[in-house]
Amino acid sequence: MKTIYMDNNATTRVAPEVLETMLPFLTDLYGNPSSAYSFGGRVARNIRESREQASALLGASPEEIIFTSCGSESDNTAIMSALNTGKDKAHIVTTRVEHPAVKVLCNELVKRGCRVTEVPVDRKGELDMDRYKESLTSDTAIVSIMWANNETGVIFPVEEAAQLARSRGILFHTDAVQAVGKIPIDLQQSAIDMLSISGHKLHAPKGIGVLYVRKGTKFSPFLIGGHQERGRRGGTENTASIIGLGKACELAADRMDEENTRVKSLRDRLERELLNRIPHSRVNGGGAPRLPNTTNISFEFVEGEAILLRMDEFGICASSGSACTSGSLQPSHVLRAMGVPFTMAHGSVRLSLSVYNTDEEVDEVIDKLPPIIEKLRAFSPFWKPEGQACASGT
Amino acid sequence: MKTIYMDNNATTRVAPEVLETMLPFLTDLYGNPSSAYSFGGRVARNIRESREQASALLGASPEEIIFTSCGSESDNTAIMSALNTGKDKAHIVTTRVEHPAVKVLCNELVKRGCRVTEVPVDRKGELDMDRYKESLTSDTAIVSIMWANNETGVIFPVEEAAQLARSRGILFHTDAVQAVGKIPIDLQQSAIDMLSISGHKLHAPKGIGVLYVRKGTKFSPFLIGGHQERGRRGGTENTASIIGLGKACELAADRMDEENTRVKSLRDRLERELLNRIPHSRVNGGGAPRLPNTTNISFEFVEGEAILLRMDEFGICASSGSACTSGSLQPSHVLRAMGVPFTMAHGSVRLSLSVYNTDEEVDEVIDKLPPIIEKLRAFSPFWKPEGQACASGT
Repeated sequence: MKTIYMDNNATTRVAPEVLETMLPFLTDLYGNPSSAYSFGGRVARNIRESREQASALLGASPEEIIFTSCGSESDNTAIMSALNTGKDKAHIVTTRVEHPAVKVLCNELVKRGCRVTEVPVDRKGELDMDRYKESLTSDTAIVSIMWANNETGVIFPVEEAAQLARSRGILFHTDAVQAVGKIPIDLQQSAIDMLSISGHKLHAPKGIGVLYVRKGTKFSPFLIGGHQERGRRGGTENTASIIGLGKACELAADRMDEENTRVKSLRDRLERELLNRIPHSRVNGGGAPRLPNTTNISFEFVEGEAILLRMDEFGICASSGSACTSGSLQPSHVLRAMGVPFTMAHGSVRLSLSVYNTDEEVDEVIDKLPPIIEKLRAFSPFWKPEGQACASGT
Repeated sequence: MKTIYMDNNATTRVAPEVLETMLPFLTDLYGNPSSAYSFGGRVARNIRESREQASALLGASPEEIIFTSCGSESDNTAIMSALNTGKDKAHIVTTRVEHPAVKVLCNELVKRGCRVTEVPVDRKGELDMDRYKESLTSDTAIVSIMWANNETGVIFPVEEAAQLARSRGILFHTDAVQAVGKIPIDLQQSAIDMLSISGHKLHAPKGIGVLYVRKGTKFSPFLIGGHQERGRRGGTENTASIIGLGKACELAADRMDEENTRVKSLRDRLERELLNRIPHSRVNGGGAPRLPNTTNISFEFVEGEAILLRMDEFGICASSGSACTSGSLQPSHVLRAMGVPFTMAHGSVRLSLSVYNTDEEVDEVIDKLPPIIEKLRAFSPFWKPEGQACASGT
């Protein structure tokens, strides 16, 4: 059975062009780039090239790029650096809908004596900018706000938020792992101080990330060891994956148009047809600016997990808004923050596309998903055939 | 020109068998192992297998294995975890000859209010066990002592040291990145609580490591985020490299005999012949128990860097004991801790072999290195042709 992969916000296929650039570094060119001999020096040159490719995608300078092991490490590094360099400040501003790499870290930091403000979002998933402004204090060490939400694709006005932070002398970090490669980013004309990238969200392999740190930003390393990355991140360079990430950044720049035209129109058609064919369904974040590849649809009176299992039988890969994979039966913290009613939040499915998706795949999902929902609803104690809910919790 | 690679303590060739197991995960099997669908579940099963392979090499249980991004991350994680879980304790015991991932981190922790004791070594590079015992206090949060030294190959009695720590109720961590795969390790009958592995030191790719954490050990995550690694290390699993590391661990177990017979005899012949042919040379750590693959030789009155450059012209890859790659002209902290005279420490070269080295390569180095030293000495102001030193600093 063919796999129809529509979970690109979770992880992406490694682009064949990316693997091709990596292979020499997994075979003959295994030298340590920090070595004195030319067998290592050659590898160091290739890493420099990759650093240029990554910086080009962001409108940054190569020396502002620190290679890390993943987006989560980049997020942890940014926040811990701000706390370590802004010694007396112990307040963090973030949002209610962040990725666990920010959210769970902040929870832990509260235990260690920090104060954290989570700015709320409205029903469309948009950030409450008034509450954001009010949250900034003289004790705030850092603001960390994601550029685009992984579950809904909703895009936050990070540039505006960054300027407000800067005007108060506060460092601004953005987890941009979902945004990079999908929307244009130019850090040259920006007030953003730090930004996280995850390789495997843009067709590079898992296990590689970037933290952009603006020149002149006070910085304290998270992973401490050797002199790699100009003393800003210890550990032997993950050569092959760094090379792959550079190529992926180059490809992402080339494909940004396609993401915003062909991929967006696939997403739009998928979303429109599913809403048309399935009653009691709605798009979460639908009223807000969104990434071109993501749709998050709630189907009332069904369980997201059950939908995914049935889709899996047809080889369709998607994810539910709920945090089930962590063993929790709570619905997604993102949808709860948006005030999505409990019965709706439980039955949400995220479909996230990429340039590798086709019209035929969209046809297939439009064909298979409506009968799945119908059958599941037939088993639901809350569902009446005429489509009237008998209970709708919050 | 053929490369003669004798810098395996810096990094190693990825074993072709390892790359072969990785490739499916860099092409078709790109699913996120945390996903609900079977496309991800299959990957999760392969990761479980890899965890079993890694634990088998150590005599550990699979649930005691945490995959990290490198040996340095493993070291940082172990030490920071001990400080976070042993809250009032702020003393660390380590040695003067540790890797930067421990040494530089400890320097940083001193700035943050910790107290660090660096146990000295003697002229043979062996640990001063009396000083070690004296250093353990009721305030000691953790002992971190490397199993085998990266520069000299000298093996420390970590088991004895771990038992002493345990008898005082102190956590014991060992950076075993150079030891794993070269000497047998059985953690089942051990007092070691945590142990670091680096993939790229044993023919897995760069960018993957393991932290072993004994069941029941109090643990606090270093990289905080999602629920991966049972909540002990956030970040999407580096699938392909994890799979590769598992295979590399399996291979290492199979090749341990060869390391200790064929590779050891290559190293012994190389060392013997170089000492025979080059006057005023000596093996650093030669009198101590050592890894079978490593030799560190000082050639008096020459600069290690100059030797490496000349060797590079013949395609021979080795490293100097000095920390030149970090831009410092200071000789190695390891050799200085051993009391190696300044003129000797500056002229040291480390040759580290692997199962991929051959008799012919050893012949080539035995042939090429003596004339290199001779020529370099001819330029040295301290060298007299009859071999008499006119000055020998400390």
